[in-house]
Amino acid sequence: MTHAAVSPPPVSGHRFSVLYRLAGDEAAARRRAQDICLEQTVEIPETLVPEGLIRDHVLGRVEAFEARPNGGYSARVSYAVEVAGAGLTQLLNVVFGNISIKTGIRVERLDLPDVMLRALRGPRFGRQGLRELLGVPTRPLLCTALKPLGLSPESLAGLAYRFALGGIDIIKDDHGLADQSFARFRERVERCAEAVARANRETGSRSIYVPNVTAGMDAIDARARFARAHGAGGFLIAPGLTGLDAMRWLADDDGLALPILAHPAFQGTYVLHPSCGMSHELLFGQLPRLAGADATIYPNFGGRFGFTRDECLGIVRGTDTAMGSLRPIFPTPGGGMSLDRVPEMLEAYGRDVILLIGGGLMSPGSDLVATCRRFRALIER
Amino acid sequence: MTHAAVSPPPVSGHRFSVLYRLAGDEAAARRRAQDICLEQTVEIPETLVPEGLIRDHVLGRVEAFEARPNGGYSARVSYAVEVAGAGLTQLLNVVFGNISIKTGIRVERLDLPDVMLRALRGPRFGRQGLRELLGVPTRPLLCTALKPLGLSPESLAGLAYRFALGGIDIIKDDHGLADQSFARFRERVERCAEAVARANRETGSRSIYVPNVTAGMDAIDARARFARAHGAGGFLIAPGLTGLDAMRWLADDDGLALPILAHPAFQGTYVLHPSCGMSHELLFGQLPRLAGADATIYPNFGGRFGFTRDECLGIVRGTDTAMGSLRPIFPTPGGGMSLDRVPEMLEAYGRDVILLIGGGLMSPGSDLVATCRRFRALIER
Repeated sequence: MTHAAVSPPPVSGHRFSVLYRLAGDEAAARRRAQDICLEQTVEIPETLVPEGLIRDHVLGRVEAFEARPNGGYSARVSYAVEVAGAGLTQLLNVVFGNISIKTGIRVERLDLPDVMLRALRGPRFGRQGLRELLGVPTRPLLCTALKPLGLSPESLAGLAYRFALGGIDIIKDDHGLADQSFARFRERVERCAEAVARANRETGSRSIYVPNVTAGMDAIDARARFARAHGAGGFLIAPGLTGLDAMRWLADDDGLALPILAHPAFQGTYVLHPSCGMSHELLFGQLPRLAGADATIYPNFGGRFGFTRDECLGIVRGTDTAMGSLRPIFPTPGGGMSLDRVPEMLEAYGRDVILLIGGGLMSPGSDLVATCRRFRALIER
Repeated sequence: MTHAAVSPPPVSGHRFSVLYRLAGDEAAARRRAQDICLEQTVEIPETLVPEGLIRDHVLGRVEAFEARPNGGYSARVSYAVEVAGAGLTQLLNVVFGNISIKTGIRVERLDLPDVMLRALRGPRFGRQGLRELLGVPTRPLLCTALKPLGLSPESLAGLAYRFALGGIDIIKDDHGLADQSFARFRERVERCAEAVARANRETGSRSIYVPNVTAGMDAIDARARFARAHGAGGFLIAPGLTGLDAMRWLADDDGLALPILAHPAFQGTYVLHPSCGMSHELLFGQLPRLAGADATIYPNFGGRFGFTRDECLGIVRGTDTAMGSLRPIFPTPGGGMSLDRVPEMLEAYGRDVILLIGGGLMSPGSDLVATCRRFRALIER
C-alpha cells in the first residue's frame, strides 16, 4: 500500500519532552523507548512510517537514554507540540495513552516549552493567591473535612461552624459527599457556607467552606455555580473521577474564580507499582497544577496509606518546580493524620503546606473547637 | 465531640455489591475487607461511626468472604444504593475512590440491583442494534483504524474509501487523531465521512466512519454534533481521558444517537498488577457497558500488549453478563493483530465480536482494497 502524498502544514519545531522510567536490561529498555516513540504517535510498525513530515516531526524521538542510579533506565522522549495540539486531554494521550497498557514503563516528569505553558492558564490563585484570600501571609494553612457521610446538612453545618470557630482555614466536604438523600448538595452548601460565614463574623477570620463538586459531566457546572452563588469559598474536585480537563475547565471559568482543591480518589493505582503508571510528582504535583488546582490533596507518609516520605516530597517538587509562569500550588498531605503528627509534618514540609486532618480532630466526648485551637496553636509556635 | 442528631430520610434498603480480591493471609484480608467498608463510605475510624442510620445503612457491609482457588481472598461488600446516589461518578467513587490508593485490593466485579440499572440507559444499540445498523445479521464485524497521525485529511479519506470498498464495516480514527494542524477535526470528518459514503454507494454496503471525539470538557459536544451532522456513523471516545461519565453523556443524548466505541487509552495501569486496580472484566467490560458504549476496544492476547487469553475472555464476560435490561455490547479485540490471527480470534470469540486490525492491513506495495477483501473472506468462510 502506498500512502497518498502528505501536504505538510509547517511544524513549529517546538517539542515537549517526557521522562520515562524503563524496566529491563539495557537492550530491553532501549526497545521500550523506541516502542514509545511509535506507540504514542503513529501506531504503525517502524518500517511503515512515511518519510518526510511524519518520520521527521510526528514520530516521537529519544533525546536521552541513561542508566538510573538505583536500577533500570531513563529515557527522555520528545514529541512535536503539534501532536498534542491544544489542551490537556490529547497531551495526556500522547504522554501515556496506549503505553499505559504496557508493563515496564513509568512516566516520571513532563517538560513543556513556554509555547505550551502559555496556552494554559494554570492555577488562578496558587500559593500566594490562596494566602491572600485567606489573610494568612506566612504560616501553614489548616484544612479539615466534613464527615461522616450520612450526617444531615444541619449536622454537617454544625461541624463546619465549630471547625471555623476553632481556627481551621479550609473546611472541605469529605469527597464522598455528593448529592445523596442524606444531605442534598444544595441544602448542604447553603447551610455549611452560612455556618462558616457566621463563625467568621465572630472570629474576624476568613475561613472558607469548600464543597465537593465532583459529579457527572452535566452536573458539575450547575453545582459549581450554585455553590459560588451561595457562599462557597472554593471547589473540591476529584479529577480521577471527572477527567482532568473538568478541573481545568472549572479553574478557567472567570464566573467561578474560586480556589480549587484536587482530590486523589480513583487515581491511586497509577502510583502503586514502580514499574508502571506515573510518578507521584507527576500525578499529584505537575498534573493538577497544569489543570489549575491551587492545592493538591494526597495521603501523607505514615498515615493510613502507604506513600513514603520521598514520594511525598516528590509531590512537593511537582507543586513548585519551574513550569513557565504557572504558579506554585499547595501540597496538602492528609489521610489518617492526627495532632501528634503535626511537628513531623512541619519538619518535612516547612511553611508552604496545607495540613489536612479530618477524623483525627474528632474523638468521642472531646470539645471539637478546643481540639481545632490546639491544632492551630501547634503551627503558630 | 458529639455528633448532632441525624434526621434520617428513609433508606430504601436496596444495596449494590462489589466483589474485591484481597491480598495477604486470612487475617490481613479480613482487615482489608473491614477497611474497605469504612474507607469507601464514612472515612472515620470504626469507633467513631455513629449508631443508627450511619452504622446500620451507610457503612459498607461484608456480605461474604472466602478463600480464592488460586490464592488470596475474595470479599463481597455491599453499599446502600443511596450512598452512590444517581450517576456513574459517585458510583465509581464508592467502588474504588480512596482504596485505589491502597495495595492489595483489586475490584473484580459489580452487581447492581435493578433499581440502579433502571436509572442507567446503557448502550443505545448494543450488539443487536449495531448489527441492524450495519446490515450484518450474523457474521463477525470488521473494524480498522485510520492512521498514521500526520497524514492529511485528504490522505486519511483516501484510506477510508479503500477500507470501505474492501468491505470493512467500521472505519474509525486512530485514537491519536484529535484536532491537530496536520488534519483538523472538521475537515477530516467531512472528507472521511464523504469517502465512506461514496464507497457505500458503490458497494451497496453500510460501512460507517467513526471519528474520535475524545477532547476537552468543552469540545466534546461540538465535535460530536458536527460529526453527526456531517455523516459520521459513530463516535470513538477514550473514557480514561475524558472521565467515564463523558461517554455516558454522549450515549444518552437523543440528538446524537450513534453507536459508541470505547477506547482503552490511559486506563491500562488499572489492570497490569493482579494485586491492585481492577479486573479486565470490570474495566473493559462492565464499566463501558454501564456508560453506554456499544463496543469496547482492548488489546487482544498475543498482540503487542500483554493481556492473556483468559483476561480477554473475562472482558467478553463483562460485555454480556446479566445486567438488568442493559444490552450486551461487542468485544473489540485489536492491538497488533494481522490476518493470520483471524482464525484464532474466531475460535476464541465466536461470531459476536468486532475484529480490529489497523496497521496489520497495511504493507508497503500491497493493494489495500485486496487485503481488506481477504480479511472479509476469512470471516465469511
